[in-house]
Formats: sequence, C-alpha cells, structure tokens
Amino acid sequence: MPPLHPKTMNDEGGAKAKPRKPKPATLSNSHALFNSTIRKPCLKQILFTFLLVLALYALFNAFFNPTLDTASSIFLSAGDTSVTYPAVKVYLYDLPTRFTYGVINHHSLARGGSRSAGDKSPLKYPGHQHMSEWYLFSDLTRPESERVGSPVVRVSNPEDAELFFVPFFSSLSLIVNPVRPAGSVPEKPPVYSDEENQEALVEWLERQEYWKKNNGRDHVFVASDPNAMYRVIDRVKNSVLLVSDFGRVRPDQGSLVKDIVVPYSHRIRTYPGGVSVDKRKTLLFFMGNRYRKEGGKIRDTLFQILENEKDVVVKHGAQSRESRRAASQGMHTSKFCLHPAGDTPSACRLFDAIVSLCIPVIVSDSIELPFEDTIDYRKIAVFVETASAIKPGYLVSKLRTFTSDRILEYQKELKEVKRYFEYDELDGAVNEIWRQVSKKLPLIKLMINRDKRLVKKEPDCSCICVNQTVLR
Amino acid sequence: MPPLHPKTMNDEGGAKAKPRKPKPATLSNSHALFNSTIRKPCLKQILFTFLLVLALYALFNAFFNPTLDTASSIFLSAGDTSVTYPAVKVYLYDLPTRFTYGVINHHSLARGGSRSAGDKSPLKYPGHQHMSEWYLFSDLTRPESERVGSPVVRVSNPEDAELFFVPFFSSLSLIVNPVRPAGSVPEKPPVYSDEENQEALVEWLERQEYWKKNNGRDHVFVASDPNAMYRVIDRVKNSVLLVSDFGRVRPDQGSLVKDIVVPYSHRIRTYPGGVSVDKRKTLLFFMGNRYRKEGGKIRDTLFQILENEKDVVVKHGAQSRESRRAASQGMHTSKFCLHPAGDTPSACRLFDAIVSLCIPVIVSDSIELPFEDTIDYRKIAVFVETASAIKPGYLVSKLRTFTSDRILEYQKELKEVKRYFEYDELDGAVNEIWRQVSKKLPLIKLMINRDKRLVKKEPDCSCICVNQTVLR
Repeated sequence: MPPLHPKTMNDEGGAKAKPRKPKPATLSNSHALFNSTIRKPCLKQILFTFLLVLALYALFNAFFNPTLDTASSIFLSAGDTSVTYPAVKVYLYDLPTRFTYGVINHHSLARGGSRSAGDKSPLKYPGHQHMSEWYLFSDLTRPESERVGSPVVRVSNPEDAELFFVPFFSSLSLIVNPVRPAGSVPEKPPVYSDEENQEALVEWLERQEYWKKNNGRDHVFVASDPNAMYRVIDRVKNSVLLVSDFGRVRPDQGSLVKDIVVPYSHRIRTYPGGVSVDKRKTLLFFMGNRYRKEGGKIRDTLFQILENEKDVVVKHGAQSRESRRAASQGMHTSKFCLHPAGDTPSACRLFDAIVSLCIPVIVSDSIELPFEDTIDYRKIAVFVETASAIKPGYLVSKLRTFTSDRILEYQKELKEVKRYFEYDELDGAVNEIWRQVSKKLPLIKLMINRDKRLVKKEPDCSCICVNQTVLR
Repeated sequence: MPPLHPKTMNDEGGAKAKPRKPKPATLSNSHALFNSTIRKPCLKQILFTFLLVLALYALFNAFFNPTLDTASSIFLSAGDTSVTYPAVKVYLYDLPTRFTYGVINHHSLARGGSRSAGDKSPLKYPGHQHMSEWYLFSDLTRPESERVGSPVVRVSNPEDAELFFVPFFSSLSLIVNPVRPAGSVPEKPPVYSDEENQEALVEWLERQEYWKKNNGRDHVFVASDPNAMYRVIDRVKNSVLLVSDFGRVRPDQGSLVKDIVVPYSHRIRTYPGGVSVDKRKTLLFFMGNRYRKEGGKIRDTLFQILENEKDVVVKHGAQSRESRRAASQGMHTSKFCLHPAGDTPSACRLFDAIVSLCIPVIVSDSIELPFEDTIDYRKIAVFVETASAIKPGYLVSKLRTFTSDRILEYQKELKEVKRYFEYDELDGAVNEIWRQVSKKLPLIKLMINRDKRLVKKEPDCSCICVNQTVLR
C-alpha cells in the first residue's frame, strides 16, 4: 500500500520525539566553513561561532515547536494569542488478524479471490463508502514523520496512552458476504460470520487490562456503517464511536457529546474545475435508489414530484461502477444535488455532492453532520423540511430563486471546506477526525475520574440540549 | 486594585499581538556595541550583524510563540508532539455599572460605608468565598501582557469574539443586604434588590445583538453561589454557567457537559510548610455549622459520632475572622479534614483543606468537583459514602488505617495540585477556569451551527452517562 499522505517537511520525529537540536555534524561543518573566512582574533571567532550556533538552534526551535515533557503542562507566553497543547497520545491495539486483515481476506475470498500460502503481498482493502476505518488505521501505522499536522501521536506503550484505538474493520465485516438476490440459495453456507467476529472482538477486549481499567470509556471504535457493531453495541457504548449518523443507535448508546460523526468516503471523483454557473446546466440532480426503508420512504414521493420538472434530472440507479460514472457526470454539471434521507438520515451522496461543488439540498430532518463545530453547513447546503419538500412545485421554485451570484458563493464555500471530506488529502478528513477525537478527551477524562470516585453507583447523565423551552 | 498576577517575562503584547520583532532601537545599540570591536572587513561586519539579528529574532520567536493569523488554522510540524491552537477570543461586556461596581458600592453602603461624590478611589470588592466572579472580571481587564499563560485572549470587537463574558457580580449581589437575626425589623427597607438586578441584567442582555444571535449559547456567567441568578436561571440556561455545584439547578439548567464547576475562593490561609506527619497531631478536624438545611442534615449525626473520639476535633463555629483563624490553626495541624455536604453538596471547606495540605474526607455523595478532567481526586482525598460515615466508629477506624507514608503521599499530591485552587497565583485557578471554558467551545460551536440549520425545532438533548447498565 503506498503512503496515503505524501512525505513533507522533514523525516525526523517518532512517537516520543525530544526537542530537536542541530546535529553535531552540521554544526562542525558550518563552523569550518565560516572559520576559513574569519581567522582572528580568537575572541571574535568564538563570539561568531557562538552566535551562529545560537541562531541555528533558535531558528530550529522556532520552526519546529519544542516538545513538552509533561502531558498536562501547556506552553504559553505573555500577550501571545496561541496556546500549545501536547498532542493526544493514542495506542493502536495490535488486534488478532481476524479483526483486521482477516476481514479483508474473507471479503476477497467471498468474491472468488484466492491467495497462495506463500503470497506475501499486502492485502488490499476494497474501496467502499465506509472505508474511514481503513484510513484511520493506516494513518496510525504510518511513521510519525509522515503524519504531518496530526493532533494525535501514536504511542507504543499502552501505559502512556490517553486513548485506545480499536482497528476492527466493522463496516467491511458487515459486507464480507455478498448480498444475494432474495430467494437464491448459496452454493455453500458462508464461512465468515460478522456477528461471531463482533462478539469475539468484545470478548477479546474484555480480557484486556486497559479495557477493564476504564470500562472502555477511553476506547475509540469506527462504526461508520449504521449497522456496524450492532450485535455488541451495548457492550461498547461507553466508548467513543465514529458513526455516520445516530439513526440506529439509541440515545444511551450514542450522542453528539460522546461520539463523532464522520464523513462517508465519497465514491465519485472530485470535481477538478473551479466555481462556475455556466458549466452547470441542470438545476437539480439526483441519482440513486428510489425505494428505501424507514427514513427513505420519502424518496418515491420526491421522484413523482420531480421527474417531470424542467432542468431536473432524477434517476433510479443502483450501486455500480457504471452508475458512479453517470452520477459523477450528473453532479459535476448540476447546480443543486438532492440529498434525501437513506435508510438512516445520512448517505454517501452528500459527500459526493460536496466534492462535486454541487450544492446539496438536504431533505432529511434528523440528519447529523460531520465536523459541525467547524463547518456551518448553512453556507454550503440548502436545508428543506421534509413536509415542505413533498409539496408539488415547492422545491423547484425555491431553487429557481437563487441568483447566479448566490450559487457562486455556495460553490466558493464548498471549495473552502472540501478538504475536510477528502480522506486521502494531507490535512483532510483523517486529521480532522483525530482533532474531533482529541476534543473529546477532557470530557472522557472527567467521566473516568468522576466515575471512579463516585460512592453511589447510580445511572447519571449529563446533557446539552437545544430548543428546550418546556420547563419540567 | 493592584494587579493580581505579578508582571513577568515581558511587557509587550496586547489583544491581537503580531509576531514580535526586536525593536529597531535595541538593534542599533547592539550593532554599535559590537561594531566597536569588529571594524573590518565590511563583509565580516555585515555577516556578523546579520547573524546577530537572526539569533535575536529567532530566540524571540522560540520563546514567544508566533501568533496565528486565522482563527481556525493550527500550526503543526511533522513528528512534533504538540499542537498549537489559537487562544479563544473572549469579549468582556461593558455592563452598566449597576451590575458590577454598583453591586460593590451597595454592599459597602449597606455596611455603613459612605463615598463622597468626588471620591475617585477604586471600590474594593469585599473578600468572600464566591469571589471567583471578581478574579475572572479583573483578569480580563488586565493588559494582555500581564495575562501570562492564559488560554483566552480578550478582544475589543464583539464581532471577533467566540465567547462573551457577562461580568455581573451575581454572588456578591445575593449578599448585599446583610442577614438580620430572625424576627428583627430593619430600620428602613433595603435599597438594593438582588432580584431586580438579576431581571434588569437579563432584560439588558436580551436587547443585545450578540445575545440574540446565538440565544446566549456562547455567553459565560459566573453563578458561583448556589443561589446566584436563581430568579433568571431559566433565561440564561443556554449559557455556560460557572457554578460551585449543581445542587440547586435542574438537569435542563446545568450539567457537567454544558457548565463548569469552579472552586470556592479559600478563606483560610495557605499552609506555608512542606509535607509532614509529625506536625499534624490531630487525626481529623472539622469546624463549621453543626446544623444545615437539606444535604447538610448529616452534620449533626457526624458531630454526635465524632465529638468524643480521641485525636478528633469537631467544633461548631460560624463565619467570622476569629473562626477562620481557629480553622486555619486546626487545618494546619490535622492529618484529615472532614468535608460533609453543606446546604448543597459543595462547600468552601474543601478548598480550605486542600491549601492546608489537610487530606479532605469527603462525605457528600452527590458532590461535583472542579477540574476533574485534570485532577484525580482519589489521589488527594478520601471519599466515604454517607451511609457508612454515620456508622459509629467507622470513619475514625478507617482513617487510623492510613500509614504515615500513605498520608505523606496524599500531602505530596495536594501540594502538586494546590495551585489550581489559588485564585491569585500566576497560573492558578483563573487560568484553569479559562482553560475549562475554552474546552467547551467546540461543543458550543457545534450546538450553535446545528441549532440554526435544524428544520424541526424540537427539544433534543445529547448526553454522556455513567453507570448506565439498564437497557431501555
């Protein structure tokens, strides 16, 4: 697997880099160089060398921030307007292979792949919309020197860790066995069981010292597919879950306070051009499954309303390479892209639209959005209440009121935030997810410390609410 | 008022300090100084000066971190294990005087103080256990150069602010009118009404643009006395409240997620000595009101159990300078200090004990503690469930099992964390409170952005829970 982030800046570092000092070799060389031009008197020479060393050392320090020795201290100076915190220390569990590469292997085998016993080439994680689990895992396995801009640092000793990352490929595990047409009988029963693997994972974890220490509260799981980990969710609900939405978790299992909403890994290619209205002739585009369960039932109604509108393209389409190509083409040439709820409030389509600079029109009342502390989605998307969206004519007339200038403004904002949704960009989705994870740490530490000293072990919740005008 | 934090490091800075460069005057002087010793050749001289400038500039940069231009960017380098974030930008409301110095003036007048019309000397905020409101206000009014180590920076333009500090002296306001003995009739009715002032404050705020903008969600109030702001709490419950505990607020008004627990301002003097068992002959000390309301009812039972125990001092005592002197003496010469609940779960006594290096014995099942993400209170205090504490003999026999070494360990830990409870220390309680405030910012921003784009305005809470084993 090639490194996902290009190597930049320098190759130094490591999990526990000390404040760097210029290498003695470099210094002697510089010294010699200048020595040849300034020979006497001795005092001058010494002073000169001293200043040179000082200049080099200080420059080094100025460009590469010094490392802090203690985890809790922060480095600050008077009148300064920035604050330096130590990077959050994350331990990557070395899970038994069955939970990581074993899942990739089973996925490949179930699709006719075969590996000879001697094959040492790395297994390739297959591309799909919930592959954030792969990007986060491979980010942590990279040398620190390549993890440019990361707010977390990997530590090799769990004793040093503040958080524990459990790299189970929970979303891939769900789709190991290919979906078969209803009624068809498989030639032989599947050899892989996602449910068994979920349970085996939790059993393995529950034997680990650091899981038991804080009841999993400082552990981080990726459960990006809304069904991922469903079998064991109650046993890992203390942990930080990286999810796509909260459509299939109860409030006691997941919340905006405890967990993190991560973007889908977009499936169509990023629009390479700039902002423009002329190149986007279609007003509104949608391509996808017309019929969905639960929250997605609205889709059929939207199809009926929209399919005969001028400048509007709505197409039924299933997951395939061909569909993706058609969707890319459509999203790259439309001003607005419809984003109705899928089976759960979120869907990959939103992120496809964002990287296409196609303004998302979100018709999904309970949607949760990634990085919403950083991104004001009103600047990049149009939100329409479901009840309004299904009124004939409403949606299209609303969209026609947007001027070209307003559309260009949205596109500029989309271009600004696009990097947050690019998993393979240098300071993209991966770093932002770690940033979100690191922001949870104070509350996690508070809950851990508090939980241990509480003398009464009663259920007890702390909440933050919106629109709460009713007095109890 | 003298500055509470001694001036250190340098005098430069200001609310929006740019990366500093050495002053030209200084440079010319240094240049001249070295010029006299190195006269030729010209190249050498120029090179020398260049290096000197570089060394000075780089040193400057290394010691005083460069300012970041954009609020959202962070400064990171490869392999580095620290992360630099911009300081959180806080706007200090210039409130009408009645909410700040007016409260001090009324407090003074109600105690026979008088001020001539021409008196320009600053009003002195009176010392009391809930004076964090004064320390935070005066910290923000200080020049940035003196706010060493602060994770927040004051901005003069509200448009630049991320948080808004409302410096109403809510706890002082509660005690403006002296408590009179029950049944006594005051000579004339009090001229000051705390309730009126609370309501006037909220009415004033509700007219402010930046209050309306985010429904007060990015506003910060000090409500340290458990009764402070009680009249208007439902109108400010969206805001961040700095409280002593949650004893008198409902879960929809205050929580560990939204709000911050701040320490009382300790009322007895800090123990100046080091760790020691020999100098502390008393096993357990308590001095305070024997009879309290609600959570404090346990006190009378504890008195009965403890008052005849050997090596134990329990004394009834009211608030007075004399009592404080006796309490100082007692806490400085005891190994353990009893901390039963007051009318609410918290009390100032805990912080008096901490700065006395007297190990707190906390008998208050629902107590919330300041800075619990940073401080593991099990290392500095002994927690005893109320039900056990009131069993005769239990408490004293438990405390007698602690060895001298164990007691010294507790004392060492107390010494380590003491600074968090010192409001007038350079990197003490004030900076730590701002740090706690700044850690709330991501969630505040998330809730603000989310609230504005939600199409359905329904009450909706996000929570984090402990001991939640019951499935719904």
